[in-house]
Amino acid sequence: MNERRPLNACSLDELEQRRARLAARFDQLKAAGLKLDLTRGKPAADQLALSDGLDGVLGGDYRAADGTDARNYGGLRGIPEARRLGAEILGVPPDDVIAGGNSSLTLMYQIIEAALTFGLFGEGSAWREESIASRRAVKFLCPVPGYDRHFAICDALGIEMISVPMTDRGPDMDAVEREVAREPMLKAIWCVPKYSNPTGCVYDDATVERIARLPARAGKHFVVLWDNAYAVHDLTTPAPRLANVAALAKTAGQADHVVQFASTSKITFAGAGVAFVAGSAKVLARFEHYLGAMEIGPDKVNQLRHARFLSGRVAEHMRAHAALVKPKFAAVLQRLEASLGGLEVARWTEPHGGYFISFETRPGLAKKVVALARDAGVTLTPAGATHPHGRDPHDATIRIAPTFASLRDVEAATEVFALCVELASVEQIIASRSDARAKTGSATQ
Amino acid sequence: MNERRPLNACSLDELEQRRARLAARFDQLKAAGLKLDLTRGKPAADQLALSDGLDGVLGGDYRAADGTDARNYGGLRGIPEARRLGAEILGVPPDDVIAGGNSSLTLMYQIIEAALTFGLFGEGSAWREESIASRRAVKFLCPVPGYDRHFAICDALGIEMISVPMTDRGPDMDAVEREVAREPMLKAIWCVPKYSNPTGCVYDDATVERIARLPARAGKHFVVLWDNAYAVHDLTTPAPRLANVAALAKTAGQADHVVQFASTSKITFAGAGVAFVAGSAKVLARFEHYLGAMEIGPDKVNQLRHARFLSGRVAEHMRAHAALVKPKFAAVLQRLEASLGGLEVARWTEPHGGYFISFETRPGLAKKVVALARDAGVTLTPAGATHPHGRDPHDATIRIAPTFASLRDVEAATEVFALCVELASVEQIIASRSDARAKTGSATQ
Repeated sequence: MNERRPLNACSLDELEQRRARLAARFDQLKAAGLKLDLTRGKPAADQLALSDGLDGVLGGDYRAADGTDARNYGGLRGIPEARRLGAEILGVPPDDVIAGGNSSLTLMYQIIEAALTFGLFGEGSAWREESIASRRAVKFLCPVPGYDRHFAICDALGIEMISVPMTDRGPDMDAVEREVAREPMLKAIWCVPKYSNPTGCVYDDATVERIARLPARAGKHFVVLWDNAYAVHDLTTPAPRLANVAALAKTAGQADHVVQFASTSKITFAGAGVAFVAGSAKVLARFEHYLGAMEIGPDKVNQLRHARFLSGRVAEHMRAHAALVKPKFAAVLQRLEASLGGLEVARWTEPHGGYFISFETRPGLAKKVVALARDAGVTLTPAGATHPHGRDPHDATIRIAPTFASLRDVEAATEVFALCVELASVEQIIASRSDARAKTGSATQ
Repeated sequence: MNERRPLNACSLDELEQRRARLAARFDQLKAAGLKLDLTRGKPAADQLALSDGLDGVLGGDYRAADGTDARNYGGLRGIPEARRLGAEILGVPPDDVIAGGNSSLTLMYQIIEAALTFGLFGEGSAWREESIASRRAVKFLCPVPGYDRHFAICDALGIEMISVPMTDRGPDMDAVEREVAREPMLKAIWCVPKYSNPTGCVYDDATVERIARLPARAGKHFVVLWDNAYAVHDLTTPAPRLANVAALAKTAGQADHVVQFASTSKITFAGAGVAFVAGSAKVLARFEHYLGAMEIGPDKVNQLRHARFLSGRVAEHMRAHAALVKPKFAAVLQRLEASLGGLEVARWTEPHGGYFISFETRPGLAKKVVALARDAGVTLTPAGATHPHGRDPHDATIRIAPTFASLRDVEAATEVFALCVELASVEQIIASRSDARAKTGSATQ
């Protein structure tokens, strides 16, 4: 049914016919009352079931490797085997890891709040002190498109967001270095270095190296926030390799300025896993002190469950995830290509892992497409969510999350989505030609 | 060996003989190299074992009562059955409860930080705004002796602490009401209403009623922080009844101004349980909004485990705890009475539940006794920990925590402790008589 040539190359008549055909199909879909959802980066039930063995795995043995009774209070850094698990995922020494509660997002919030109000680098290093003294806001660099929950933390804590563009090799480092040199109140950069949310790109070696050296160029007390949420969430073999930012930062004398995060949320149970934060001895000691006022320790029983369940078999376990997730990514990509390939009205990423595909419409169409899809029964992440304050200046980026729905639903939803993109694009092109004609008309009158 | 009369009534010779006898015994103990610990309010291993059935209790069924898949993301307020469990413990409707993570201490910290920086009562209600505008610090009322971790939260968040005396029926409400009328920047009062930490007292009905009405007398945005940590931790039957502060506050039109906390930490696993916060619809909505920036939801799998494990049998489960804990309390009380009864050098509480006994030495001896006990191999909570900034103005209060050690160790440790109290008391009385003689001598010279 689709012709394989750019829509822009079609005549107005051809476009009008195409619109009529697409609109009729759209009305059919709308009448069908679909209820499909591509919004959230959530694992599907069959992925979660891979970890059902967690419950009962302890078999009555609640002793950690160092003799700690995991059932009792204490130990702000978590038990040794959980710290080793985090170290394995993040590629750092276990001593550099704190194993925490169920949420790496919470650890990020807490690290940032600690940096703001308490200081990660000793007395007098609190960002807020500098902010009050200089009467200037604390600012973070936000590569866009990015992760809405990172932006929400900034919003909640009164941190200004400076957008920099993402490329397919990571943040545009020329832009990043320029901003950092210009603005001493820039205190951090958000990074999802592997299978970036939402583009799915993996930062290349040159980018990671420049990021590791970035704190040396920045104002004082700068922190690289390295949210390695998808460190082991590969879909292809061999998986793309991510350079070791901690090792590079150490070489660059900037070990104190990189803080890493990970969790088992999308390895075992989303929201019932174990989260990790990694940093230098100095920063972890400050953070532990900060945490000491608000908790007695993390849930060590759940840590022990996870360590016993995953020990020595993370890679194998992630292959089982990939077997379930990969067909869904393939289904989205195949249907996007089948529906939109050659039309030159959209671009999308083809990630080798992670949880998202980033889709780019013609400028000014993302909101429209999301609204059309909703009318046709397919819920998408709100357009703009990938940008600070929900404002995508080009209104073009849409995040597609293929994991949660069933394969059949993903297929159906993608077809609806592609139809909406094509319809919105055709309408936009027709409208722009009418505008152009009207302008030409009024100019010649 | 002990004579049953007040040490103050003994002659100097008798006291000197007594000191020699006690010192010799003390040296024996010191040489014995004991290693005993009465510091922490931790459950003992046999108490924890009562809940070993938690692991595996789900039997592969991860569905909550409302159909929620507990393994996946979402639901800031927790699953319905966990909220019902919290409601049962706190005596409030389930709708007024958020079931959270593993730590009620964290929920307290978060509620206070939310009240400080975000406001629990809508726009413009943040305590910090008022503090900045008035250039005056936020202050909390702290009944003393009290819980060191409550004080540590105040310290961490820059909140000034105003001490008020505890009585055996709760805080001295005349003092509380006086302070509240005097100081509009008093924004909260810490309460451990049942088996107060460390005195073990239960607030009587009149006290609870006055506390429920307190916000009406206080400056704006006042909060009663009701840490009902030992709500079901009874050692006697029938257990003392605590009046329902939420119901009383509602009657008084102050429902928004009471926030309650509890957890299963000392019901199931310490640090691996479920914590609860209860409040009015308005306050919970604000708090949920605040939490939304830092987490996606609590560990619902652990909530489901707890709900299934404890549902309908909290009282029975707590009786099993009591069977293990009560002999330890009895052992402490019996040995204190046997060693110190009639000497009139100390007082101690005799709680009907909870985790602590509060012990009062002659003024100026608490630190000395703790140091002596340490030398004899018995670790006690640092003297002063029961007061803000670790400063007990009378240097008299010592918190005894009998639960964690074995019964035999509790017996041995209490005997050592009592010996240290008697030795320090005898020495103090002898010294004061020497002082008195020296003064008389110099006066007559």
